[in-house]
Formats: sequence, structure tokens, C-alpha cells
Amino acid sequence: MRDLFQEELVAINSDISQMAELVGKAINKATESLLFADREIAERVIESDILINDLASVLDERCTTLIAKQQPVAAEIRSILGSMRIATSMERMGDLAAHVAKSARLRYPARAVPDELVETFTTLGHLAEELTQQLSKLVTNPDVTLAQIIQKADDRVDAIHRELFRIVLSPDWQHGVEAAVDVTLLSRYYERFADHAVSIARRIVHVLTGEPYIDTVLH
Amino acid sequence: MRDLFQEELVAINSDISQMAELVGKAINKATESLLFADREIAERVIESDILINDLASVLDERCTTLIAKQQPVAAEIRSILGSMRIATSMERMGDLAAHVAKSARLRYPARAVPDELVETFTTLGHLAEELTQQLSKLVTNPDVTLAQIIQKADDRVDAIHRELFRIVLSPDWQHGVEAAVDVTLLSRYYERFADHAVSIARRIVHVLTGEPYIDTVLH
Repeated sequence: MRDLFQEELVAINSDISQMAELVGKAINKATESLLFADREIAERVIESDILINDLASVLDERCTTLIAKQQPVAAEIRSILGSMRIATSMERMGDLAAHVAKSARLRYPARAVPDELVETFTTLGHLAEELTQQLSKLVTNPDVTLAQIIQKADDRVDAIHRELFRIVLSPDWQHGVEAAVDVTLLSRYYERFADHAVSIARRIVHVLTGEPYIDTVLH
Repeated sequence: MRDLFQEELVAINSDISQMAELVGKAINKATESLLFADREIAERVIESDILINDLASVLDERCTTLIAKQQPVAAEIRSILGSMRIATSMERMGDLAAHVAKSARLRYPARAVPDELVETFTTLGHLAEELTQQLSKLVTNPDVTLAQIIQKADDRVDAIHRELFRIVLSPDWQHGVEAAVDVTLLSRYYERFADHAVSIARRIVHVLTGEPYIDTVLH
């Protein structure tokens, strides 16, 4: 009974790690579709989101069954519930990647982001991908230091998000309302993406160390 | 043991109902702060979000303990997990109301929304509040018809959200980039608020009827 239980926990962690990889690939490709106004890549990101959603459903069911059949103790229940929430956050990160791709598709054949902001969005894309890579490591090898690295990457995303607002709202903005709206929403997608990564990292550290869990996503 | 369990389930539903009321009040007051550029009301909404977050934490703990101590059967576990997700969605709705209030506060003493859109945001506010009232009823008295009413209100919110995009991006838009960015984000907050309401309604119907749960929030 206990062996089966441990096997299931390992399988759940492996599913989460796989989700992190898919989400990382999704945000990488979404950013590519955005920066190169590549409709084909955008379509593929949007389609592949179904896969991430399906994985989240499977994981959810697996966790529910585990609680129902194996009667885990309180600490184990907390850990399983944590995994379910991590899956939900990752699903949402996949959706946000799909939102970026949808913005790219909407403006095709034009690019949704003006020339002067290509570098900024390239950085956002790199940071978002880095976050998922760190998350994937954190899931298979929980480590407080990695969680801190994730927090720092999120701080950088937040700083860029604020900077983009400043640029869009400055009197020097030459690209009109549509580009301003696009940049605002896109920036928010990356910001929320990073928030979810931090939320997941905190959840893992919470299970790992018993430190209180504070959810930044919700603020 | 079973009596205690039933009592706890009733208490959980009562907590959820209370959250729905608080969230309804929050979006009502947030809309008021937005439309009347009322900083004091905005501050109160932002502060009261802590209360909603705390309620969600208490509910979460209550549900976790219930699973751990009472060893519920599979159907009961699914129902409790559903309640936990509903609490998470409601917490997020409270955050979105706070986001609306923060937009109002940011532009004070000016109003974040131009005159011509006051009526539209009044409607969005009414719809959002109506959604929470229906949700509160649905929690205490599950009913598929109510869930359909919630879906319809969400359809109206979505239609207004699309219409606002059209207005902001039209060549007739006279209010500049800042107002466009504000309206875009505000409209998105209401849209996400309504999405969460539908997600909660579907979850309740899912537990009620066994119909498959399809999460719109995540799309």
C-alpha cells in the first residue's frame, strides 16, 4: 500500500515536471511568434495548450484518487493538495502563453510589438522561460536557493512590466493606441506568468520547509 | 463522526456564501470608487481584500483538516476539493475588485474612465454584482437554472468587453493612450471576474449533477 503510494507521488512529481517543460516551451514559442510575427508558430502554441490542460486534468484526477484510495496522513494530504495547486498554476501559465500567441496572431502579418520594444519582450521571454526551467528543477530537486532565484527573476519581470507602462504612457510614445493596448496586455501576461512561477516555488518551499505559504499570485 | 462531518460541510458552504457576499460588496464599491473617482471608497475596498484573503485561508485549512481527520469517501473528497477551488476563485475575484479600486486610486482626483464610458462601466459593475448574488444563492441552494443565469450574465460581460476594445481602438477615440490603457485593463478585470463566477457555477453544477466540469477561466 505504502509502496504504491510512494510510486504515485513520484509519478505526480514527474507529471508536474513534464508540465513545466511544456509550459516553458509554450512561452518560448509564444514569444518567438510575437517577435517574428509568425502565425504558424502562434497557431501551434494555441493548439498545444490543449495538451497542457489535459495533463492538468489527468494530474488532478490522479491526486484525487490518491487521496480517496490511500487515506494519506495530514502532511501527505497537504503535499498532494499542493501538487494540485501547482498543476492549476501551470495550466494557467500555459493559458497565458497562449494569450501571447493569440496577440501575435491577431496582428499578423504585422508585429504586435513596435521595433523599440523588441529587445524588452525578448528579455521577458527569456526570463519567463528561465522561470519554468528553474521550476522544473525545483519540482524534482526541491531547494530553497532555487526558489530565491525564481523570486529574483520575477522581480526583474515586475520591473520591466512597470517600465513598459512608463514607456507606453510617456508623451514620447509614437505608436498609437492599438500598440499601447497590445503592449499593456502582453506585459500583463508575462507578469502574471512570472507571478504563478513564484507562487509555485513558494508552495514547494512551503511543503519542503514548513515555512508559511504566502501567495503572491493573489495580490 | 458523520454528524460532525455534515456540520463541517454546512459550515464550509456558509463560509463560501459569506465570501460571495463580501466579493459582491467589494466589486460594487470598487465600481463606485471608479465611477465617482472616490479615493476613500477605493482605499476601503483595497483594505477589505485582506479579509477575503483571510477567509479563503481559513476555508482552505478547514477543508484540509476535514479530509485529513474524517476520511471522507471519494464523492465527498471531490465535493470538498470543489469547495477549495471555489474559495480560490472567490479570493481571485476579490483581488480583481481590488485591482479596479487601485485603478480608481491611481487616477484620483481624475476619473480613470471617460464620460462616454461611465454608463458601460456602470453596467459592468451591476452585472458583476448580480453574478455574485446569484453565486451566493447557488452555493446555499444548488440549482442548474441559476447556473444558466450566471452563464448568460457572463456572456453579456464578454460582449461588453469586446465592445470596449472596439471603442478604444476605433479612430474616433479621443481620450488618448492613458485612458485607453486604463479602460483595457479595467475591462479585463471585469471580464476575468465574470469568468471566475462561471467557473464556480460550473463547479457547483458538476458536483450537483455529475455533468463534466469544463473550466472557462482557464481558456
